[in-house]
Amino acid sequence: MSTKNEKDNSDKIAIIKNLGFKILKEIESGQNPFLDIPVRAFSNVHYNETKKVIELGSATSKRYFFNVSHIRKFVQTAEVANLAIKLLNIDKHLSLRQVFYAMRRTIPNTKIDIVDEQTESNQAIEDLELITGLPREQFNVNAKKSGAAAGKIVIEDKEDIIDLSKMGSGGWSIPSNTENLKFKKVDAKYVIYMEKDTMWERLNEDRFWDKNNCVIIASQGQATRGIRRLLKRLSEEYKLPIYVLVDFDPWGFYIYSVLKFGSIDLANFSDKLAITEAKFLGMSAEDIKKYDLEKQKIKFKDVDQKRLEQIKNYDWFKNDKRWQNQFEQMGKMSSKVELDALITRGIAFVSEKYLPEKIKNKDWID
Amino acid sequence: MSTKNEKDNSDKIAIIKNLGFKILKEIESGQNPFLDIPVRAFSNVHYNETKKVIELGSATSKRYFFNVSHIRKFVQTAEVANLAIKLLNIDKHLSLRQVFYAMRRTIPNTKIDIVDEQTESNQAIEDLELITGLPREQFNVNAKKSGAAAGKIVIEDKEDIIDLSKMGSGGWSIPSNTENLKFKKVDAKYVIYMEKDTMWERLNEDRFWDKNNCVIIASQGQATRGIRRLLKRLSEEYKLPIYVLVDFDPWGFYIYSVLKFGSIDLANFSDKLAITEAKFLGMSAEDIKKYDLEKQKIKFKDVDQKRLEQIKNYDWFKNDKRWQNQFEQMGKMSSKVELDALITRGIAFVSEKYLPEKIKNKDWID
Repeated sequence: MSTKNEKDNSDKIAIIKNLGFKILKEIESGQNPFLDIPVRAFSNVHYNETKKVIELGSATSKRYFFNVSHIRKFVQTAEVANLAIKLLNIDKHLSLRQVFYAMRRTIPNTKIDIVDEQTESNQAIEDLELITGLPREQFNVNAKKSGAAAGKIVIEDKEDIIDLSKMGSGGWSIPSNTENLKFKKVDAKYVIYMEKDTMWERLNEDRFWDKNNCVIIASQGQATRGIRRLLKRLSEEYKLPIYVLVDFDPWGFYIYSVLKFGSIDLANFSDKLAITEAKFLGMSAEDIKKYDLEKQKIKFKDVDQKRLEQIKNYDWFKNDKRWQNQFEQMGKMSSKVELDALITRGIAFVSEKYLPEKIKNKDWID
Repeated sequence: MSTKNEKDNSDKIAIIKNLGFKILKEIESGQNPFLDIPVRAFSNVHYNETKKVIELGSATSKRYFFNVSHIRKFVQTAEVANLAIKLLNIDKHLSLRQVFYAMRRTIPNTKIDIVDEQTESNQAIEDLELITGLPREQFNVNAKKSGAAAGKIVIEDKEDIIDLSKMGSGGWSIPSNTENLKFKKVDAKYVIYMEKDTMWERLNEDRFWDKNNCVIIASQGQATRGIRRLLKRLSEEYKLPIYVLVDFDPWGFYIYSVLKFGSIDLANFSDKLAITEAKFLGMSAEDIKKYDLEKQKIKFKDVDQKRLEQIKNYDWFKNDKRWQNQFEQMGKMSSKVELDALITRGIAFVSEKYLPEKIKNKDWID
């Protein structure tokens, strides 16, 4: 008799169990058991011009059980697969660090621990992702938790109905894993993701999402996998425009880049993470002139200049005139301008003027 | 006619305006206007054995308007006082960075900017705190936002009623400023603050707060000022025990230390921030033996050992045998043990065994 959780997670359990059955079959037929793992390295990553996402190529490498240099990793991957089935069966989640501890045991009658360092369990989790095609969140391993959301949307999360328009000054804290959230009601017309939670608090206090019928989401810097999946789902399932608001500097632009095109690190999951419809709302080079922010420029350090040279040559930027124009102006200024600089124009300038005007005029890069 | 906000904030506005009237009076009577600022330096900080908090002494320093080396800071403090009144009048909030931008303007007919760097506006904000005795949150300048909360408590935040027992897997995102929250209903019997949000997600998934009638709160590492005020208010206004859950290492112990005794940096606000009733719940040296975590020890690095030597000599720890016993055992092990190591005992071990047992047995240091 299967429990509710086994039933809910049965597809995923089956995928992971099949890996075990394959190995068992190889053992029974006297073969050397192996795992076929897609190669997640720069050499096997490319930008797909048609789909406009960073993708993993088809190269794989075989890892054999009877191979002195392979066996440790082989066993670690099998162990994490075992743990994943256990987690799916009881429907409990662990963080990366907690998985490390859950795997950290001594092999009976030896002095060998399955894992000595978290880098090993992390690698095993990534291998299981690559082999099964399931992001870790789907086998109940959580990534980082960060970020808050508020706006015209109602979420169903197990037995709780959460109205994001009634979250006060704090907002709803976005969980590390957003796979199983249901959208009960979506009145929002669009979503703004911003890289600073201080800007989020400013907009939330002005009830920007209420006046403009939208959702506002922020974390600090790069969006977590949980936020990316949440944005991706709202983009795909509800066709909501996702506007991205970042500082005018290479680091801010790269936050947008990862959201829209995916990343080399997670090229295997671009289909699940890359928000191909995301729009860069600001801050742009034109904004600096238009909104009189020239005085707010902060001189680049060497590290900023170097980062600019790197990102302007990325495959997904290098043939796009609009982006090359931004990079060229940024290079000429050799300065960054922060979103917070808009405060020089007035405390509520961002919510009352900058954002409504930019959205109304479709003043974005998509 | 005063608006609603002016009325709500009128006491605070009066305190800040009095500073202006004092300066004006000095100008009118031909005196050299000055500010009398409590000295916030190690030399003026001590541990109050009776109150059991870190306190600021009575030393002050005078800052004069007609003094070439004082005037820049004098003007910055006056400018931030001006901005504070403006913020209180319209009841809007800014972050530290946003205050920097709001102050960043050129003095008419000069080429001199009021502030060139955020360190200057930060310093001016701190000066205004010291002079008025108002924490920056009370004049609408927000500190860092971090952390999530869930449990048996209902919060009223302006027009929103937020039931923290219905926040799904994410929890309520704690605002940077918790001064104006109202507690609509408090059914919780205690609060647990933990330093890791991964542990929070584990406990929240197990609905620990539901089964044990409590509130769980976490951020990453040190609690923000917003979280500290929230905990302090629940401790003072509702007499809820505040249990603190940190790693067994000098850094974890220091997180507890700041929560309970205050800090040198914020010695002027210990009466508002230090939770004198906070209890250290774990992880203790005894836990490591009792819960069979010896194998999970992680060897100290030099920096850990040095930090241990520092904190064990703090005035508030050095005469307390219970703490000296912890430090001695930590020194002997020369190792840390993380809370997450409890996962080696079982996925729900923390919520089903460790925490209920420790609380039932009053196995804490208070």
